[in-house]
Amino acid sequence: MSRKMRMGIVGGGRGAFIGTVHRMAATLDNEIELVCGAFSADPGKSRLSGRDWYLPDERVYGSWQDMIAAEASLPEGERMDFVAIVTPNHMHFHPAAAALRAGFHVVCDKPMTLTLGEALELRGIVREMGLLFALTHNYTGYPMVKEARALARGGRLGEIRKIIVEYPQGWLAARLEASGQKQADWRTDPARAGASCCMGDIGTHAENLAEYITGLRISELCADLTTFVEGRPLDDDGNVLLRFGNGARGVLHASQISIDEENGLNIRVYGSKGGLRWRQEEPNTLLLMWPDKSREIVRAGGGYAGRLSAAAAAATRLPAGHPEGYIEAFANIYRNFARALRRRLEGGQPDPEEPDFPTVDDGVRGMQFIEAVVASAKSDKKWTTFPNA
Amino acid sequence: MSRKMRMGIVGGGRGAFIGTVHRMAATLDNEIELVCGAFSADPGKSRLSGRDWYLPDERVYGSWQDMIAAEASLPEGERMDFVAIVTPNHMHFHPAAAALRAGFHVVCDKPMTLTLGEALELRGIVREMGLLFALTHNYTGYPMVKEARALARGGRLGEIRKIIVEYPQGWLAARLEASGQKQADWRTDPARAGASCCMGDIGTHAENLAEYITGLRISELCADLTTFVEGRPLDDDGNVLLRFGNGARGVLHASQISIDEENGLNIRVYGSKGGLRWRQEEPNTLLLMWPDKSREIVRAGGGYAGRLSAAAAAATRLPAGHPEGYIEAFANIYRNFARALRRRLEGGQPDPEEPDFPTVDDGVRGMQFIEAVVASAKSDKKWTTFPNA
Amino acid sequence: MSRKMRMGIVGGGRGAFIGTVHRMAATLDNEIELVCGAFSADPGKSRLSGRDWYLPDERVYGSWQDMIAAEASLPEGERMDFVAIVTPNHMHFHPAAAALRAGFHVVCDKPMTLTLGEALELRGIVREMGLLFALTHNYTGYPMVKEARALARGGRLGEIRKIIVEYPQGWLAARLEASGQKQADWRTDPARAGASCCMGDIGTHAENLAEYITGLRISELCADLTTFVEGRPLDDDGNVLLRFGNGARGVLHASQISIDEENGLNIRVYGSKGGLRWRQEEPNTLLLMWPDKSREIVRAGGGYAGRLSAAAAAATRLPAGHPEGYIEAFANIYRNFARALRRRLEGGQPDPEEPDFPTVDDGVRGMQFIEAVVASAKSDKKWTTFPNA
Amino acid sequence: MSRKMRMGIVGGGRGAFIGTVHRMAATLDNEIELVCGAFSADPGKSRLSGRDWYLPDERVYGSWQDMIAAEASLPEGERMDFVAIVTPNHMHFHPAAAALRAGFHVVCDKPMTLTLGEALELRGIVREMGLLFALTHNYTGYPMVKEARALARGGRLGEIRKIIVEYPQGWLAARLEASGQKQADWRTDPARAGASCCMGDIGTHAENLAEYITGLRISELCADLTTFVEGRPLDDDGNVLLRFGNGARGVLHASQISIDEENGLNIRVYGSKGGLRWRQEEPNTLLLMWPDKSREIVRAGGGYAGRLSAAAAAATRLPAGHPEGYIEAFANIYRNFARALRRRLEGGQPDPEEPDFPTVDDGVRGMQFIEAVVASAKSDKKWTTFPNA
Repeated sequence: MSRKMRMGIVGGGRGAFIGTVHRMAATLDNEIELVCGAFSADPGKSRLSGRDWYLPDERVYGSWQDMIAAEASLPEGERMDFVAIVTPNHMHFHPAAAALRAGFHVVCDKPMTLTLGEALELRGIVREMGLLFALTHNYTGYPMVKEARALARGGRLGEIRKIIVEYPQGWLAARLEASGQKQADWRTDPARAGASCCMGDIGTHAENLAEYITGLRISELCADLTTFVEGRPLDDDGNVLLRFGNGARGVLHASQISIDEENGLNIRVYGSKGGLRWRQEEPNTLLLMWPDKSREIVRAGGGYAGRLSAAAAAATRLPAGHPEGYIEAFANIYRNFARALRRRLEGGQPDPEEPDFPTVDDGVRGMQFIEAVVASAKSDKKWTTFPNA
Repeated sequence: MSRKMRMGIVGGGRGAFIGTVHRMAATLDNEIELVCGAFSADPGKSRLSGRDWYLPDERVYGSWQDMIAAEASLPEGERMDFVAIVTPNHMHFHPAAAALRAGFHVVCDKPMTLTLGEALELRGIVREMGLLFALTHNYTGYPMVKEARALARGGRLGEIRKIIVEYPQGWLAARLEASGQKQADWRTDPARAGASCCMGDIGTHAENLAEYITGLRISELCADLTTFVEGRPLDDDGNVLLRFGNGARGVLHASQISIDEENGLNIRVYGSKGGLRWRQEEPNTLLLMWPDKSREIVRAGGGYAGRLSAAAAAATRLPAGHPEGYIEAFANIYRNFARALRRRLEGGQPDPEEPDFPTVDDGVRGMQFIEAVVASAKSDKKWTTFPNA
Repeated sequence: MSRKMRMGIVGGGRGAFIGTVHRMAATLDNEIELVCGAFSADPGKSRLSGRDWYLPDERVYGSWQDMIAAEASLPEGERMDFVAIVTPNHMHFHPAAAALRAGFHVVCDKPMTLTLGEALELRGIVREMGLLFALTHNYTGYPMVKEARALARGGRLGEIRKIIVEYPQGWLAARLEASGQKQADWRTDPARAGASCCMGDIGTHAENLAEYITGLRISELCADLTTFVEGRPLDDDGNVLLRFGNGARGVLHASQISIDEENGLNIRVYGSKGGLRWRQEEPNTLLLMWPDKSREIVRAGGGYAGRLSAAAAAATRLPAGHPEGYIEAFANIYRNFARALRRRLEGGQPDPEEPDFPTVDDGVRGMQFIEAVVASAKSDKKWTTFPNA
Repeated sequence: MSRKMRMGIVGGGRGAFIGTVHRMAATLDNEIELVCGAFSADPGKSRLSGRDWYLPDERVYGSWQDMIAAEASLPEGERMDFVAIVTPNHMHFHPAAAALRAGFHVVCDKPMTLTLGEALELRGIVREMGLLFALTHNYTGYPMVKEARALARGGRLGEIRKIIVEYPQGWLAARLEASGQKQADWRTDPARAGASCCMGDIGTHAENLAEYITGLRISELCADLTTFVEGRPLDDDGNVLLRFGNGARGVLHASQISIDEENGLNIRVYGSKGGLRWRQEEPNTLLLMWPDKSREIVRAGGGYAGRLSAAAAAATRLPAGHPEGYIEAFANIYRNFARALRRRLEGGQPDPEEPDFPTVDDGVRGMQFIEAVVASAKSDKKWTTFPNA
């Protein structure tokens, strides 16, 4: 099938940060073309956004409902193949569900939904429709995260004992939402963000990363959530003790009030035979630690044959020393999704490694995490169970 | 003019590293679309490459001559606006000259030509035709390089005294070209690479970076070039003393045999009032040094209003802590070129900051640098003049 | 009084790591001379250790009891001024109490005693005797820790909101004590180490550092302690949520099983106006973070006048870029102790900044910390009170 | 011989930076005691300095001539064993020569003398008298420098191809000597410093380090020396191309005007089989680079048995992660000297590895380096021979 996968987008209009990221990520590898969009609930704004992106007016819609209906009625060779949903959290479930029900595959931003209930329902729809669903836990797209995963899951670190995962940011240290800043505004609003701000927006990335790399499941947690900025109805900081199913222990802490921290998603994993460290802000380096030899600096990029795992090598576009970053990692989610979709559309067998992108199950797990940490934060009981559903 | 700029490409077929980089860089910001290509001198290969990239067969050409002729005959609303030339060095001049003569603007990889003579001739054609010409000295596209330039040229460092610029790599430490590796093969061949391997391929980047940031011009140099790997006809390492027009002194060293160095383009600039350091492998950080206060870590990305120069801010897509890398820096060259081209095509006035991309003059200067270091390396005289032509 | 302060030592014989550290630290600044020692409970061993250190045989004692008795009977111009106690934890209280009762000032290693009961009793004796008592929480001796303290306590960071303090080590990842390794042997033995291994040995440093820098007091904590290595009776890892008296929140985690972590005492403090980071393994650098300007790298060493706080400047011996390390930081404890002692002996007034060394009150607090984390770890209740006694 | 080695000191009185460093370094390991000193040419000042250091008045001399004469007349069991000379450059030769002629061993600061002529004469006296002579090229005392040397000389890097050694400082970026600052004053004065400021004071350290680690000898060099600060009679910056006897090439650059650079002695060595990097400001880390495996971070300190070379292990006092710094490295020179001296005094055989401290031959080589770079800087000829005398 000699064509690119066709993407429609919901959200991402003028002023949206993440919409542009999705567009760049989706199209970077030339496997996907953006064919239509419902950029805003305001049809005029949507039109302008569409023109900004050089879409033909007739494929720019005034609502996601219109888009799904109109695209569904286009001939197969023309209509979009999948929908990317890049709206705030409260606007994930309905367009996703409708797109799936109309037979479109879906890429959705995280956290997956506003509530756990919606997440479970969405999972049911995905299963029922048998369509592809990718959740953009984009940090799992980094080559060195994939390398860490290959090492940890392949047993190189021995039995995992301790995981420290952290995600400090500082951009909400003052009451930015009071200025009307769009990103701050909805994230601090329970009606649009859900039950948590800090833990929902970034804590879920940390949770997902820890489980993605190690394959372990958090079984119990103990959370202390705080709102430091007065007048903010949701948490802007949180510290969580973790216990994993295999007996490993851990700490997850995230913050939006840690001044001048930028986007500090970091993880350290220690097993009985080795350890590793990875930092999102310097993503092309993975540090390996051993009991009986020098630390190793593993670097993304070609370098020498056979050095990296297949998954990490496949996630790298450039030779070592040519930094790939956030957009490239994000693009890896889209690329892996596009390739799975292509195989599907061409009637091929799924790759045994497929899907190497986060799915609706990761989305459910994320919503369970939010629910569990919020419940724990309100409880006097030390440990709150994190269900493995 | 509600359309993307239309790019044709010469070179970059299957197996080429830099062709894919150009495609990603050109299209990242949705300002440019690739409409045609002459990917290979072998028409069959060219066709396959075109299909890899989902181009229609009729816009995939068997030679750059065919492409220029055919595109020139297309209607204005359809034909390419500019040609990107991504072939080895010996294949830069002729397609560039022909494209310009046919009225197409040009983006060309560096070093600009095989010889200084070609470079001077090309400059003449650019001036004669009055068209845009961008040279992809891509490292000048990094936001922190632009910030460094704004600081140095704005006088914040005082009078510049010393510049250390270095570019160690290790990938040619063994005789890789003997294995037929494509990148190594042509770069070590005088017929395709020109008078220098190491200094031509990466030394020119170092030279360009030093002059781009400081605005100074090298006036004299003293070079020691070496071929460490037996059987290689060109230099794979070089060390150069620099003297600048204003009296500043410097060192430029580059290497392709410094084992396990990846792509270590680094620069340090010291003036009478301050200094700075930048490293390509960690490109989002710029270190500033002062006589009377603490070192500052300047970081790419939004952060807080007014922190960065306009040029650096414009070169950044993401908030701080979301790493942008090599492709994004490269894309900044294309974006700035596309915007200048759009203004040109729309009949607008050039931006006063325009062009913020390297031009044919940088290309001439690069060829003069190669000629000067090669001459110096052969001379017993200490200083060789670097003409300011 | 033109003489050095005279030190006697209890412990630190052949094979002891920390004894040599105390000797180097005590004598580095030429303010203190070692005049006598009871190096071992085995008189023969003690004698040999004394000769290793070139002490005259008659000042080398077979027991600390002998040393205290004999030294007390020497003329004032000859006998030791203070005793340094560098034995395992269970051997702190008795010699310290006896030395104090005999009129000698005391420097004691940490944790201060085997139990909280002993600590409280020792505090009583110190108060009763009115003598100087220093606890070697040596990490507070680093210049950049003192700078951090001056900044945090001086209000530069605003109201403190969040503290992350961590102390990973990996040296006990396997059952080293089974090999008879002396350091591992006693630290994992409840009879000699007390109620905790990891939290007692290094968790107390982390607790002390957080409180030293910020001046805040932990008010509640929630601990998860683990023993990962089979057959070990005490914890070798622990994660603790912290709440501070002013409403700040924090995390303290420490580990002896985090493979290949060396001595990773690190702290991050975030307030409403700024933040800081410090890492023990790169101790001469302090990173400052601000909402509205670039990060600053504060460096130990002279540099330029007025840059550093008086306390930090006084703790530095060398110009910037001449690394001072663990021994120098440790020596700052001894130097500050020696100077306070000298003022005392000369009948002068205490310095208003005195004592800038940890005291018996820090020792009590450390024992309360151990007791609280051990109690919390056994409890189903979320929060355990940390008394401010 | 159950006693410490006895040291007398020439220079190092009040206000001297390096005198205190020598005292701390000499006594750190308890192998040496300071017994006498001629701290200043002003007897009153010398007396006060002696009291600062708690020396008895009768062992504090008004001149080095007095000291040598008086000590020589003391009984063998009492008089000093060796003299440490810590004065400015012009005051090295005469006291060193006199001490040697009086039968005292010597430790001398670097550069060894004011002129090459003095150096050659001093070498003659050392050889004639058959006494020990150590030059305090203190940076060779770092454990990781010794590790680098063991690797490079042991062949692990293959044939050495390229060496980059650099030593930027910024403390003389303004005319500090005009303020009377003692360190700046004599270093910029030809009568006291010799033919070079920057190259003499720190360039010689760089030259020594490159040769110490690799065992290679510089055979030719090409230097560009500059005085950036007006009114300064000697160079404050220099860049040098190097050629080594085995065909290796290199760059040495040093500076005292690179603003806010502290003490940036750094070296990179690349061979045909591997490479290494070491930075003085983070001295406990050595980075190893290989063509076919990940970079290794070698760390000072115990860690695990057999990891480090014997020389590096012997130069380390503390476990990994407990930073040792400048003073400890300096102390390694003194310790190795003291041990060689003890063996000598006890009539034992020299250690086969002896001497692991720089000798009078290193001192001659340093003076030849100064002479060669100064000559080269004045020459139009590209290459100046560096004699291997």
